[in-house]
Amino acid sequence: MTGIAYWFPVIGVVGLLAAALIYFFIKRMEVTNPTMVEISEAIHDGAMVFLRREYTILAGFVLVVFLILSFLISPLTGAAFLVGACSSMLAGFLGMKAATRANVRTTHAANESGIGAALSVAFAGGAVMGLSVASLGLIGVGIAFLLYLNGVLEPSHITGFAMGASSIALFARVGGGIFTKSADVGADLVGKVEVGIPEDDPRNPATIADNVGDCVGDTAGMGADIFESYVGSIIATIAIAAVGSSKILNITPENKVLYMGLPILLVSIGLIASLIGVASIRVLRGLSPATALRTSTILSAVLMIAGALLAINGLGLELGIFWAIFMGTLAGIVIGLLTEWYTGGAPIRRIADSCKTGAATNIISGLAVGMQSTAAPVIMIAATILVAYNFAGLYGIGIAAVGMLGTVGITMSVDGYGPIADNAGGISEMSGLGPETRKITDSLDALGNTTDAMGKGFAIGSAALTALALFSAYAKTVGLETINLIEPSVTVGLLIGGILPFFLGDLTMSAVGRAAFQMVEEVRRQFREIDGLMEGTAKPDTARCVDISTTAALKEMILPGIVAVASPVVIGLTLGPETLGGMLAGATLTGVLLALFMANSGGAWDNAKKLIENGYLGGKGSDAHKAAVVGDTVGDPFKDTSGPSMNILIKLMSIVALVIAPILI
Amino acid sequence: MTGIAYWFPVIGVVGLLAAALIYFFIKRMEVTNPTMVEISEAIHDGAMVFLRREYTILAGFVLVVFLILSFLISPLTGAAFLVGACSSMLAGFLGMKAATRANVRTTHAANESGIGAALSVAFAGGAVMGLSVASLGLIGVGIAFLLYLNGVLEPSHITGFAMGASSIALFARVGGGIFTKSADVGADLVGKVEVGIPEDDPRNPATIADNVGDCVGDTAGMGADIFESYVGSIIATIAIAAVGSSKILNITPENKVLYMGLPILLVSIGLIASLIGVASIRVLRGLSPATALRTSTILSAVLMIAGALLAINGLGLELGIFWAIFMGTLAGIVIGLLTEWYTGGAPIRRIADSCKTGAATNIISGLAVGMQSTAAPVIMIAATILVAYNFAGLYGIGIAAVGMLGTVGITMSVDGYGPIADNAGGISEMSGLGPETRKITDSLDALGNTTDAMGKGFAIGSAALTALALFSAYAKTVGLETINLIEPSVTVGLLIGGILPFFLGDLTMSAVGRAAFQMVEEVRRQFREIDGLMEGTAKPDTARCVDISTTAALKEMILPGIVAVASPVVIGLTLGPETLGGMLAGATLTGVLLALFMANSGGAWDNAKKLIENGYLGGKGSDAHKAAVVGDTVGDPFKDTSGPSMNILIKLMSIVALVIAPILI
Repeated sequence: MTGIAYWFPVIGVVGLLAAALIYFFIKRMEVTNPTMVEISEAIHDGAMVFLRREYTILAGFVLVVFLILSFLISPLTGAAFLVGACSSMLAGFLGMKAATRANVRTTHAANESGIGAALSVAFAGGAVMGLSVASLGLIGVGIAFLLYLNGVLEPSHITGFAMGASSIALFARVGGGIFTKSADVGADLVGKVEVGIPEDDPRNPATIADNVGDCVGDTAGMGADIFESYVGSIIATIAIAAVGSSKILNITPENKVLYMGLPILLVSIGLIASLIGVASIRVLRGLSPATALRTSTILSAVLMIAGALLAINGLGLELGIFWAIFMGTLAGIVIGLLTEWYTGGAPIRRIADSCKTGAATNIISGLAVGMQSTAAPVIMIAATILVAYNFAGLYGIGIAAVGMLGTVGITMSVDGYGPIADNAGGISEMSGLGPETRKITDSLDALGNTTDAMGKGFAIGSAALTALALFSAYAKTVGLETINLIEPSVTVGLLIGGILPFFLGDLTMSAVGRAAFQMVEEVRRQFREIDGLMEGTAKPDTARCVDISTTAALKEMILPGIVAVASPVVIGLTLGPETLGGMLAGATLTGVLLALFMANSGGAWDNAKKLIENGYLGGKGSDAHKAAVVGDTVGDPFKDTSGPSMNILIKLMSIVALVIAPILI
Repeated sequence: MTGIAYWFPVIGVVGLLAAALIYFFIKRMEVTNPTMVEISEAIHDGAMVFLRREYTILAGFVLVVFLILSFLISPLTGAAFLVGACSSMLAGFLGMKAATRANVRTTHAANESGIGAALSVAFAGGAVMGLSVASLGLIGVGIAFLLYLNGVLEPSHITGFAMGASSIALFARVGGGIFTKSADVGADLVGKVEVGIPEDDPRNPATIADNVGDCVGDTAGMGADIFESYVGSIIATIAIAAVGSSKILNITPENKVLYMGLPILLVSIGLIASLIGVASIRVLRGLSPATALRTSTILSAVLMIAGALLAINGLGLELGIFWAIFMGTLAGIVIGLLTEWYTGGAPIRRIADSCKTGAATNIISGLAVGMQSTAAPVIMIAATILVAYNFAGLYGIGIAAVGMLGTVGITMSVDGYGPIADNAGGISEMSGLGPETRKITDSLDALGNTTDAMGKGFAIGSAALTALALFSAYAKTVGLETINLIEPSVTVGLLIGGILPFFLGDLTMSAVGRAAFQMVEEVRRQFREIDGLMEGTAKPDTARCVDISTTAALKEMILPGIVAVASPVVIGLTLGPETLGGMLAGATLTGVLLALFMANSGGAWDNAKKLIENGYLGGKGSDAHKAAVVGDTVGDPFKDTSGPSMNILIKLMSIVALVIAPILI
């Protein structure tokens, strides 16, 4: 393993170089239309200002936690935490840079060269994010593993890296989610409803903020989320293997390094497979965009699965591990498809039909669909756990999560494509480009909604599996033989844990409500006070709107962040490690269920509205459409703020528990 | 204990006689206004038709389960099941009879004698339900205990009684909830929104169905729910004591009969305390209605607590048991007050304010409040568990639930008052009585909303504690030492259990949506086809609307019922008792959280709308009011169908697990 291990960071660097190449390829493309340049600069600047201010606040938080960890646990854990946090921030920064460069160039390509070229650019922008996430994760974990092999680090220190990634992810997801939805809801409530101008109209002062929000929430937030799952699943698997004993696998003190290295080897293979998948888009661009994206994703998955089989055979490990990996990969794909169905299939027609009797019945049926949509993905996760455990013990659960996340390079590229296509549409509207261009960007955007839904499902599924793997790692590390539900202390932990996702849901939805209200007031003020704004002769003060979203997002992300980090510590130190175990289980259960419920309700309302806008039941302006808009607005914080925040909450709490395990023993 | 035990059924019979006396006292009051008589007969007939058709269907179900239990477990368990089911049906029947007689007499009293007399009648109607529930439960469990003392029954047979009560409760809650909300939503959507006539207008064909629904859902459904908790908590405590061993209490094979009898003794004391509380209303009628109801409730609670202390001392049992009882009683009161605050305090002003920016922000803030409202009650339940367990082991958890439910006679009387006051208001509106009378019934109805909210909170809290007691009884009876969360089989159970409340939420909300849609179509048809209906010269076909709600409710209650009864059996027999334990824990956790979330969101929307109707933000007809109506309509199935159904689901699943325990060992 030692020989191979030196290759892990090297492969990571190769991936990062590929991302850099793609970035410069995008940046080199010239955009000539001055309006487009101006708009894209405004979006870029808004996004960068947000990141800078966010990272400034986070620097303080990271420093404090670094110091606490260094004194309480170990300076090496603190250092790993610092590197993990910086890696996550770097990945977010690179992804945002690429997205805010690729958006306008996608519009340009759509305008000049047609849909194939535009798809290439948008996908390339997403690929920078996808490859950065995978590469930075691999470099970080790879170097940590080398340091372990050379006796510098203990496995317990490495968990700090995951906690660093996790902490940043929470703030990025919550902050990004609040930013994007306060801008979106605020822009829509005044623009579309009160003033009666279309989406992305340049006269609307909140439009730029809305587009910045797409990058901040869907690119940086999603990237940090998946980065956390990726790193978390690898490190959970390492931690489980490090403890050694297993009922099913033949892990011994001598050979355990093989089991510890396997997840890193696996994601190295996954990164190579993803690079091939990304490159294949150039060959596949003749196909329809949807088919091209799907084919490249499946190609990478198949390559990784094949590589995993070779690796397991080559290292002489049990074949059962392969089945765990296979099941994890399969579950990721199935859950993505299930999400696509619930937010795009028959259920959305049912929701659209319920708009006939008004907004209330639309809300009821959307909530019902969301509730229904929790069952199948959770059963898929349960089946994965059973199969993985049966074939490879607790190690199997960790490695199944790694299997699901191994090809993150390509899945995140596809997912990162969505907000870029969305932005490209906004820019073409704001720049007043012709209907031909708008049609291309619209069709790319529609596909983006699908990839977005699949990405959300994938993010939830991977979060669930990662959290369960981290939970197993926690129990093993603390040396708990049982977390006994018959003990009331565990039941109490379960109950307290179960509350937390509801608490987070309340905090994030209320935050969006407050921020959107401020935004509405500001947009109304501008339409009232700026002469000529409505007529298009004066310009709106877009920077002010960006600032409102930024300030609100940064202020409102603090409390959820502190609660998530502090609650495992408080419960673990006061009520003990068993109660903490119960709390993690409770939070994971309700967190996963609420995440699915909220993300899928929101996605379904969105697409039901789009169905009506495309002419169903009278189209835009009909009573059914008005009812559908209410559902869509409720769905905004559901699917883009509260729902995704759950993913992070459950992983972060488990990670914190794992990190503080040494002081709980 | 044997000597005292003969008194248990006797006290129950005394309670039942008191209920009968009160019923005949109500019935003897004469109503002279022929319109009022006609309307009240229509409501009475509709309710009775529903009950008859429901019980006909249930008879088949009960017979099938009776046969299965008799063959699979034991004929005595089957017989106990049969008696439990019949007791629950009888309690529902008596409560409905009283409610549909008391409603019109409350209107009459308000019209003739003023608010004090009207309160007395409405409360008397509720008291028939409250005392019937407590007395029938006590008679059933009391006789079963006597049969145990005489060697006829084993403790495991007695669990059949609770399962009988539970099964009927599920159908009554789900069916009743679907009935009431399909009628309510249907009546409102056409009446108030489309045609523009006020609530309870006699021209609206669905008005009678709406009033029948209040009885069917809030009286019979709530009664069956609490009857189940009452019986379930007693039987869980008996089952825990029967197993004998305890780490904290000195339970031996010789003295365990004392511990087994204590919960029955306790509810006997509670029933006497409730009778005193009910009688005290005659003395307290000079006070404001709210104060009178509250004083009588607290009086009964104090009397029961004092009696419990005497009983525990007299029997020479550990004082720790008293603290568990005390904590349970306290938790019931605190959770009720918390619910009152969330659905009537500061949060509803926040929700009303959010109506300023439309229906979507109203929905978002209502959902956020609902999510927030889960925390405090669950922490209260967790605290109760910790204290009770600390002082009296697992037995303490059971006896705490009994403590919470001991004074059901009075709490259900107060709760049963609500729908009667609601009906009385409807009858005064439909009969065209003067504004003076309407003002009295309105103020009684407003108080009814408060008692209703507290009753819902109490129902959820008691369901949670009962489910946890049953869970402990299950684990003890199967002889499980651990239900280990580290075992993936338990995690899988937890995940599957967690889905079920979401599944039930989907089924019940969708059912209401479908039934309301049919109702809307029918009401529209009648306004279209019946000449002179709008002008008030022709009469609507109210029976047709009652039939739609009845048919829909009965059809839609089947699937949830079967799922709830069958899922513990299927999981227990295929994946084993540990996975079943995980499933019960998962279902209880998400069930309690969803119940609180949905009931409190719904209640808060309702009262936010009422706040606006009372003149806040422009009052009726304003844009804010329109937005508030959307929230109220969404809240209808939330608070009266889906939310309450969760209570039953979690108890029923635990009871089924306990009943099948003998074949799982």
